[in-house]
Order: sequence, then C-alpha cells, then structure tokens
Amino acid sequence: MAGTDKSREFVYLPSPAVILCEPQLGENIGATARAMANFGLWDLRLVNPRDGWPNERAIASASRADHVTSRVRVFETVEAAIADLSLVYATTARRRDLQKEVLGPDVAAQRLATHIGKGGGAGLLFGRERWGLNNEEVALADAVVTLPVEAAFASLNIAQAVLVIAYEWRRETNGELPFATGTVEAASKDELTQLFAHIEEALDRAGFFTVPDKRPHVVNNLRTMLTRGNFSSQEVRTLHGIIAAIDRRHERPNPNRPKRQPEPAPEGD
Amino acid sequence: MAGTDKSREFVYLPSPAVILCEPQLGENIGATARAMANFGLWDLRLVNPRDGWPNERAIASASRADHVTSRVRVFETVEAAIADLSLVYATTARRRDLQKEVLGPDVAAQRLATHIGKGGGAGLLFGRERWGLNNEEVALADAVVTLPVEAAFASLNIAQAVLVIAYEWRRETNGELPFATGTVEAASKDELTQLFAHIEEALDRAGFFTVPDKRPHVVNNLRTMLTRGNFSSQEVRTLHGIIAAIDRRHERPNPNRPKRQPEPAPEGD
Repeated sequence: MAGTDKSREFVYLPSPAVILCEPQLGENIGATARAMANFGLWDLRLVNPRDGWPNERAIASASRADHVTSRVRVFETVEAAIADLSLVYATTARRRDLQKEVLGPDVAAQRLATHIGKGGGAGLLFGRERWGLNNEEVALADAVVTLPVEAAFASLNIAQAVLVIAYEWRRETNGELPFATGTVEAASKDELTQLFAHIEEALDRAGFFTVPDKRPHVVNNLRTMLTRGNFSSQEVRTLHGIIAAIDRRHERPNPNRPKRQPEPAPEGD
Repeated sequence: MAGTDKSREFVYLPSPAVILCEPQLGENIGATARAMANFGLWDLRLVNPRDGWPNERAIASASRADHVTSRVRVFETVEAAIADLSLVYATTARRRDLQKEVLGPDVAAQRLATHIGKGGGAGLLFGRERWGLNNEEVALADAVVTLPVEAAFASLNIAQAVLVIAYEWRRETNGELPFATGTVEAASKDELTQLFAHIEEALDRAGFFTVPDKRPHVVNNLRTMLTRGNFSSQEVRTLHGIIAAIDRRHERPNPNRPKRQPEPAPEGD
C-alpha cells in the first residue's frame, strides 16, 4: 500500500524502544525498522546482531525508514540496552514458567503510554528468530506480552510481532504525545541491574549457591521477584543498604550483644 | 517467534475472505497466507496474479501455512472474486474522493464479525504492490478500511496490512465462532454486479453517456451510490424491475396516455 506523504516530516515523539536480542538476519532488522516507522516508533536497539551493524541487507529491507536505521544503537548485553528504561516488556509466543504477568498487546500499549506519558522510558524486548528470548532475558522484564496467535499456526516473524505491537501503540496514542498525570516512581533498569549484581555477589560470598547448576534458575527467580516489586530509586537504595548491612555484619559490632572483645569501628553508612 | 503447537489442528471457522487484486510478487502472496494463518484466517482469493498459480515463491514464503495456500482460488475479475459475498471492505492507504465510509481496522473487524455471525459472507480487498486498488474496485466495496499509519512513512507491505486487520479480527472474535442475532439482509455482490450491468447497459442504449471519457467516473459514482444503499435481494429485484420498466417504456403502451395508434402487446414481466 503506497501513500507516504513526503511533505510530512517525521516527528520523534517519546515512544517505546524496540530491542532485538541477537537478531540473525539483516532482512528482519530492516523489516522491523519499516514496521516501527509505519506506526511512529523510531528507537531501535540491537543486542549483538550476528552480522554486526551497519548491515546492508537491513538497510535494503527497511524501505527507506532512514530515520529509524540511522539511529540504531548496538549493545553487548540486554542489561546495557535497557539500562536507561524503567518499564520493559518481553514479547514471547510460548508460555514461560516464570512468575510474570502476561499482557495482550492492547493492554501493554495502554500501560506503555501511561508510563511514557509520565516521562518514563520504556521498551519492548524481542527474541531471536529461532528460539525467542532466553529465560534470563525474560526475567529482566516487568511483564510478558503475548500475541493472540492461532495455536495451530503461531510462527510469527519478528517484524510482524513488532508491527502488531506498534499498531496498538499507535491506536492508543493516535500519533500524539502520550500524556499522563503523576510521575514515574520506578527505578531504571540500570539501578535494578546493579542491585541484582550486589545481591548475587553477596550470595556468592556467603556460599548461598551450594549447587552451582541451579544458580541460573535461582538467580532468574530472584530477579523476577525483585522486578515484580516495581521498586522506586529510593527503595533500591534502601535494598542496597540492607544487603550491605547484612553482608558486613561480621565486620562490625552487634550493638544488641554485649561486647566480648574490641572490634574495629564500623564504616560510615 | 516460534511456538506453533503441532498437536493442534486448524479449524476452518467462518471468517472474512482476503482478496488480493493482481498481486505481482509470490513472496507477498506467501507472506499474506502466513499473516492470515497467524490469526486464524484461511480464505485467500487472487485476482489475476501476475505469475499465475500455484506459485513456488509464494509457497516458500508461506512458512508452511498449507491450510491456506492449498485452498487459494484464482479469479479473472474482482466481481467474480466477491460474487458470493454480501459485505466487502476495500483497504487503502490513500484518501479517495469517492463517497465511502472510512473505517479503522477495529471497527471494520467488529462489523465483519457481526455480519459473519449472522451467517453472511464477507471479504477484504487489497490492492497491487505499486498503486493499491483502482477506483472502480473501491467503488464495489461497502466501505473503505484505512490503517492509522504514520503519514511521513505510510509505505505498508500488503502482508503487513493483512496482518493488522487479521489481528483485529482475532481480537474481536477471540478465535471463536462469531455469533450475532438477526439475519443478513444484504444482497450478494453478484446480485449487485448484475444490477450495475443492467443499469449501465440501459444507460448506454439511452445515450446517457454523451462524453465517453467521463463514463468510467460516472459509472464509479453510480456504483458507489448503489452499494451504499446496502440493498436486500428483494430490493435489487425491485430495482431491476424499475430499470426494465423505464427501459422498455417505448415498447409498451402508456396506460395514462390516450392511445394514438395500436402498439404491440407488452412482454410479460
């Protein structure tokens, strides 16, 4: 369907980032850029694209969505790609056994618009062509978005999944600046990632992971739990303080126990 | 996104036909079949596909949506492709100056579900890769469906347009049999096509089209007007009777005027 109005200049309104995890085919990256452009999205981020970036096949498949392809950013980890965001949804076709809320594209678009309308950063994670997102990637997300595909034919191309969600975003915002009252309380994903690292290091030092094979599973569950809490920056700082306090317990005197011997002065909090 | 459940057999529920007018690339036919299959549509009709049918490239691009590709039907005219339907929407990206109602995909899906739920046949017309639908094709439709694309980047692939509308159909029907009370009153498109032919022949005989260049435009406007009336089969029969009566006026006596001379007996009605 033709009909692009070349006299109209694209306006970069605040909108969700689209994050492709380890995409393999340039054609899919390009088709994703085109699908985003159709419904007004423009912030495309790639985590470890197989063939690097820039990618000629991607540019060719993007049908001149230059305002998207020229701004593509590449990251080495999902954590880095979502560091500045405070609401992230993972798109999946399969059910996961993680304890995450599952949303349809319409509800997801409503919540994204509310979050972005309050000034928050938001993004959508899309998985690999062959097997989608890993559980550890899904664990980083606030909720899962699933498309209502026919069970007998659920094979959905990445760009098509992006198109449906971008369409819902457009339907929700009508191509205008989303606006919602209130402020975003949620900590950024970078703050959460640092909290995870702090807790997991503390647990490693404490010998918590007695069966190394189970560590990834336990870590994912822990990250899922902590993500679900939707913590504010202040709450994340409090949790850092709690972990640090417990972690250093043996280094400082317990004020509730009578002193048995002189100990070094506690470090300032 | 993987995730097809191969144990689930596809169920051919009543749903809108997708009619592609003169598609050029097999890849687009295949991608359309795949997009339809994702959201439960299965009735794909092709009007004069450039490379004929079956088409190897289409099959390859359909990602094993065999339950769609194996049932594709080919027609020589749009009129023939929609003959059995009683509600047809034309999808366009550009504004037309025809007097047709313009719907979003969500409202279109609601109306399609109501119509099909009452037992009526319905379909969606999609145009050529390069320039979409011709005005005479749009004139045959009951309304126009336009996707809310970004004006600065409206270039939407056919399969993607199909995907968005199929998604809305799925959202509306939830993968179940649509049901609505009442019966479909609308005449089939075949009945309307015959009515158009009757009227236009009568007008040709009457020397109505004094400027031959303007005939297509006038015919399109006439068809648009008559389609908008949403006539029942009975009303179409009445209109045939009216045209026939006027057309044959000179062949029969006017009972309101005194006879001036003997005339041949009128043919039976």
